[in-house]
Amino acid sequence: MLLTDFGWQDHFVGVMKGVIAGIAPGAQVVDLCHEVAPQEIDQARFLLRVSRPYFPKGSIFVCVVDPGVGSARRALCVEAGGHVLLGPDNGLFTDVLSEKGAKARAITEARYALGQVSQTFHGRDVFAPAAAHLAAGVRPSQLGRLIRDPVRLLPLDPVRTGRRFWAGRVMHIDRFGNLITNLPSQEFLPPAVRGIEAAVGFERVRRTCRFYAEAPEGELFLIGGSCGTVEISVNRGSAAKRLGVGIGAPVEVEIW
Amino acid sequence: MLLTDFGWQDHFVGVMKGVIAGIAPGAQVVDLCHEVAPQEIDQARFLLRVSRPYFPKGSIFVCVVDPGVGSARRALCVEAGGHVLLGPDNGLFTDVLSEKGAKARAITEARYALGQVSQTFHGRDVFAPAAAHLAAGVRPSQLGRLIRDPVRLLPLDPVRTGRRFWAGRVMHIDRFGNLITNLPSQEFLPPAVRGIEAAVGFERVRRTCRFYAEAPEGELFLIGGSCGTVEISVNRGSAAKRLGVGIGAPVEVEIW
Amino acid sequence: MLLTDFGWQDHFVGVMKGVIAGIAPGAQVVDLCHEVAPQEIDQARFLLRVSRPYFPKGSIFVCVVDPGVGSARRALCVEAGGHVLLGPDNGLFTDVLSEKGAKARAITEARYALGQVSQTFHGRDVFAPAAAHLAAGVRPSQLGRLIRDPVRLLPLDPVRTGRRFWAGRVMHIDRFGNLITNLPSQEFLPPAVRGIEAAVGFERVRRTCRFYAEAPEGELFLIGGSCGTVEISVNRGSAAKRLGVGIGAPVEVEIW
Repeated sequence: MLLTDFGWQDHFVGVMKGVIAGIAPGAQVVDLCHEVAPQEIDQARFLLRVSRPYFPKGSIFVCVVDPGVGSARRALCVEAGGHVLLGPDNGLFTDVLSEKGAKARAITEARYALGQVSQTFHGRDVFAPAAAHLAAGVRPSQLGRLIRDPVRLLPLDPVRTGRRFWAGRVMHIDRFGNLITNLPSQEFLPPAVRGIEAAVGFERVRRTCRFYAEAPEGELFLIGGSCGTVEISVNRGSAAKRLGVGIGAPVEVEIW
Repeated sequence: MLLTDFGWQDHFVGVMKGVIAGIAPGAQVVDLCHEVAPQEIDQARFLLRVSRPYFPKGSIFVCVVDPGVGSARRALCVEAGGHVLLGPDNGLFTDVLSEKGAKARAITEARYALGQVSQTFHGRDVFAPAAAHLAAGVRPSQLGRLIRDPVRLLPLDPVRTGRRFWAGRVMHIDRFGNLITNLPSQEFLPPAVRGIEAAVGFERVRRTCRFYAEAPEGELFLIGGSCGTVEISVNRGSAAKRLGVGIGAPVEVEIW
Repeated sequence: MLLTDFGWQDHFVGVMKGVIAGIAPGAQVVDLCHEVAPQEIDQARFLLRVSRPYFPKGSIFVCVVDPGVGSARRALCVEAGGHVLLGPDNGLFTDVLSEKGAKARAITEARYALGQVSQTFHGRDVFAPAAAHLAAGVRPSQLGRLIRDPVRLLPLDPVRTGRRFWAGRVMHIDRFGNLITNLPSQEFLPPAVRGIEAAVGFERVRRTCRFYAEAPEGELFLIGGSCGTVEISVNRGSAAKRLGVGIGAPVEVEIW
């Protein structure tokens, strides 16, 4: 499974697949998403969190959002929940590492990387070959030693700012312009609450709907989205355009 | 085979593939197109019509352009021409259903969906798992009962508006800016006709070419495209930009 | 392996995969890149050159950047370096053909194409089926006869314009806005040279870095990129936007 900020427009992802095909012929490669905003580690963490439960045990995840490529940052191999995840040690796996039984290793064995490792493309030179070797039967323990101090970032969860007030964030914007927040639907939408008001951009939104077609055309509303969190949407329109906000934008919430 | 309006920028398609890999390991998944304009059912119908003949018997098609997701609209499983097609009951399969021997079922068996079905993403929760179960050997008849009243929309064909006049439409705009219409080349281009004039946007086009390189640079022309229909093109330029028209735009045609 | 200028927004690539699945079920298809700028043959040559070494022996490459489709241009099958490459005879394979032992054939055997060959989409009608037949065991010699005069274009290498001066070009612009040139890092960056100045757009760049994170934010710099050539970059910014240049833009270089 590949999750990167490489985009679809370049040859980068294709070359990674060429490397994998050379080491582990027949290994199935699934593109999770390559359109993480360049170097947005928190967005990648969020997509990983909401997508991983849908992948079978034994899946290998290659996650490359890597502004520090070529510097001294380590390469990680994390085992958690029946999955193996490979990627840079920059906090991308903060949430995975907090799972019970999670183990992190620094990838140090040069024999599982390409012969020549560039300063700018470890997806091709380090992570794709390591994943392919794992798919071909190498064990994580062969990649390198356990470490105790992988980089950890702040939690992705919303922060309480008052008795009824919370500070959330836009974690992802989908093709339809829906703003996907980090506010769990089960805590912030009816029936868990009687009401909710979200302030985002220059607007306040109070209306909640259960599905898109229920909403009046052109009006903003809140909905429990497919990621398990509150989404800010416009039926047959783009909430992102309407509100003029981007990934990371604050969402101030009052519930009662 | 996957045909959706989910785009490539999100994790939606990747998650569907994760679900499929968990249920039917090794099943081959082909992306037909994920850039159907949001909620443009007719565009999806057109792409399905021109693409299906190129897929082998036994292919399973998952088609999700689904503005009514979460409402009471049914989930369909259609068998036709050696293919099985899964998608919402919103008219997407109008053309498939008119084929000889086509059968439609409402997907009702909860055991072939994910344990928890969201209100907003049946591609992941209903259609991908049903397709994977079919790939793994489940028969369409196990998904649910035959129905007689699937939703049908108007035909995609051009409409005759006078003795020599027809009203067509732009069904798809490709990456090169070619406007792909619903006018069959075999009826609207020489040698079937002596001449044709198409009015689209604020321009009238009379020139016809057999292949792109034959056309003078920068001039509009009509050509029999790879979908079997008339395309409006500019050699080494974008007809869509030149004419300022979008999907669904009317193409008024006179033939003689 | 597929390399085209078809983009991801259309059904073209998906239909090619449908054709392949029908002829060679189970054949693994890797998308190298579909976002070659429309009809930019030199960009496709460059991507092919830097990507091919990462694909295993036995790989079959389908390369379709084909402004002359439908005209009298031939269809080629080239064998070189353990790979087989299929595509139009328009110079796309100039560099492959200069490799030792390279052989070119004109694809003429109609039985390895689809029954009906369109004037506008040989990717689907000629190259995808030929590739699938090769994957299914057909030998290149069965596709057609050896030819001695495939189309060859000028080399992609930089041109010397003075004792210390060279004329290079931007060959590709990646998602991050990095300008990837045709100047080999091993000849144009320290330690091979003491210094370098590159003139591109209206700016001159002298700073060189070994990896992205080393550069001060917002400043232009030169770096040895993952393609083995000099890239012009801005740390956490887009050099392409900053300089306002596109693919093919000249890069005048002085080294000392």
